Amino acid sequence: MQTIPRLLLALFTVVILSPAQAKDALPSWNDGLAKQAIVSFVQKVTRKGGPDFVPPAERIAVFDNDGTLWPEQPCYFQGLFIVDRVHELASQHPAWTEQQPFKAVLESDWKALLTTGERGLVELGMATHANMTTDEFNQTVTAWLATAEHPRFNRPYTELAYQPMLELLGFLRANGFKTFIVSGGGVEFIRVWAETVYGIPPEQVIGSSIKTKFEMREGKPVLVRQPEINFIDDKAGKPVGIHEHIGRRPIAAFGNSDGDLQMLQWTTARAGPSFGLIVHHDDALREYAYDRQSLVGKLDKALDEATQRGWTVVSMGKDWKRIFNSYP
Amino acid sequence: MQTIPRLLLALFTVVILSPAQAKDALPSWNDGLAKQAIVSFVQKVTRKGGPDFVPPAERIAVFDNDGTLWPEQPCYFQGLFIVDRVHELASQHPAWTEQQPFKAVLESDWKALLTTGERGLVELGMATHANMTTDEFNQTVTAWLATAEHPRFNRPYTELAYQPMLELLGFLRANGFKTFIVSGGGVEFIRVWAETVYGIPPEQVIGSSIKTKFEMREGKPVLVRQPEINFIDDKAGKPVGIHEHIGRRPIAAFGNSDGDLQMLQWTTARAGPSFGLIVHHDDALREYAYDRQSLVGKLDKALDEATQRGWTVVSMGKDWKRIFNSYP
Repeated sequence: MQTIPRLLLALFTVVILSPAQAKDALPSWNDGLAKQAIVSFVQKVTRKGGPDFVPPAERIAVFDNDGTLWPEQPCYFQGLFIVDRVHELASQHPAWTEQQPFKAVLESDWKALLTTGERGLVELGMATHANMTTDEFNQTVTAWLATAEHPRFNRPYTELAYQPMLELLGFLRANGFKTFIVSGGGVEFIRVWAETVYGIPPEQVIGSSIKTKFEMREGKPVLVRQPEINFIDDKAGKPVGIHEHIGRRPIAAFGNSDGDLQMLQWTTARAGPSFGLIVHHDDALREYAYDRQSLVGKLDKALDEATQRGWTVVSMGKDWKRIFNSYP
Repeated sequence: MQTIPRLLLALFTVVILSPAQAKDALPSWNDGLAKQAIVSFVQKVTRKGGPDFVPPAERIAVFDNDGTLWPEQPCYFQGLFIVDRVHELASQHPAWTEQQPFKAVLESDWKALLTTGERGLVELGMATHANMTTDEFNQTVTAWLATAEHPRFNRPYTELAYQPMLELLGFLRANGFKTFIVSGGGVEFIRVWAETVYGIPPEQVIGSSIKTKFEMREGKPVLVRQPEINFIDDKAGKPVGIHEHIGRRPIAAFGNSDGDLQMLQWTTARAGPSFGLIVHHDDALREYAYDRQSLVGKLDKALDEATQRGWTVVSMGKDWKRIFNSYP
């Protein structure tokens, strides 16, 4: 009979203490303004009967991916996937050794690649992403992830999610939030690993896309990826993508660059409580340091607006105890 | 102390009995092959350790809307919304009384309207759906639903969801399924009421759409609906829309017309267990009877394929005890 009171006490604890008040759910965050702002926002929107209570169905949180949930240096990881794929496919395309933009990739001549401009990049994207079924593309990404490693950290990309952000995703979900990725990257690239790495299912990933076409092949339906852009989920495209997929305005948005500016504006201009956060890359020792002048993940206008609009700016150097899980 | 064993018994009951085995969750369904097929499918995919077990994250069920979850006669309800809106907006557009396709609508001359073809219908759609913010459109639909009534049933449209399908949605969700709408209708039209009527949140509604554009108006971000089609979520577009939004193949699909054929093919061609169901409108007395010859919701090819592919065909007349909640 001794166990009954203990059971009741346990039930009591579960019922009375809301997750936001329970033990530290953000152990990799230093105590400071950023962590305080996150915890206090979550507490106020989950406090039943409080003036800022938000029903669970409306607790939508949107996260940029590259530079917010995992690194984007020295280049977006999807860019590194493209480079590896061009090398792999080159034997089937002998002409590529003399043909831009492929020649530049095969020779690692990044200056020459940049001179091919957006057109060159789109051509590379289509050559590596289109004219195959969605299942085939999924298998290609899966195979690449199993062997590819980050050039500086010498680890699989899937081990480079930021530990503090993984804790933040879990903390929000434990408090009834639905977490979405809203990325400029390819939606089908991200969906392959987002569930394993972030606990975010494919239907909660929004991203850029190419068109697909339904076809019957030998009596079996397939979706074939077309060499045509469908949607660019970046900058002013992010609120559009959010509205198209979610159909409801988020109450919290997390980004790291000017590509996330409109998503942060859209989220924090809602009636009622909202939260905006920018991850500032200022830790060259453990990760990278870049902002206003960077080619990748430029953070300039959004950094200025953060002050005006009361968004939380996270210093990776000061606010995060560690960057990755157990390393560095 | 008497209450303790009872508490334990209650806990035992909750833990041991899976929802699929609990009391009848489909009371408006007559006992018959259709009901049996549904229950047995749900039981086999939820039986832990069973050969057909599907993890909850993969239990995606997709539902057509018009004709599957609520009626589509005498015309798609969104069409009736358009007609009402044209009447309402006519005072601001005096030229419409002499200008097709508006003249036909204002005079209820449906023959003349049909001769304006797809172009006329698109023009009507744009005049009533575009050139306003997403918030404004939402308010327009909300206001219409509050007063409009179905011409035959004399009830608000939101009271015309099929009771057996509401039970089916709830039964699937109680068994860990995530339920989505995949409709040829406008996604923003459906999202306004889908959560209240079906318990389906906006982010689980997929539909046809027009483009939207992010703009700043007096320092406030808005999304403006553009007079340009973005996506038609019908026929071969349904698997495309499913893939774009969900990124994972459903395991169960529910439709009622040839517009759902490719969605049913895509779903039931997956590796592993799957379920396809067609609602057959054969009850002129309580609802409507139509199939191969109907202008709206034509069911011809999909009815033939149902036999070949083992999809369940529901006879509304024989399988459903009632059509609507308490009426008729």
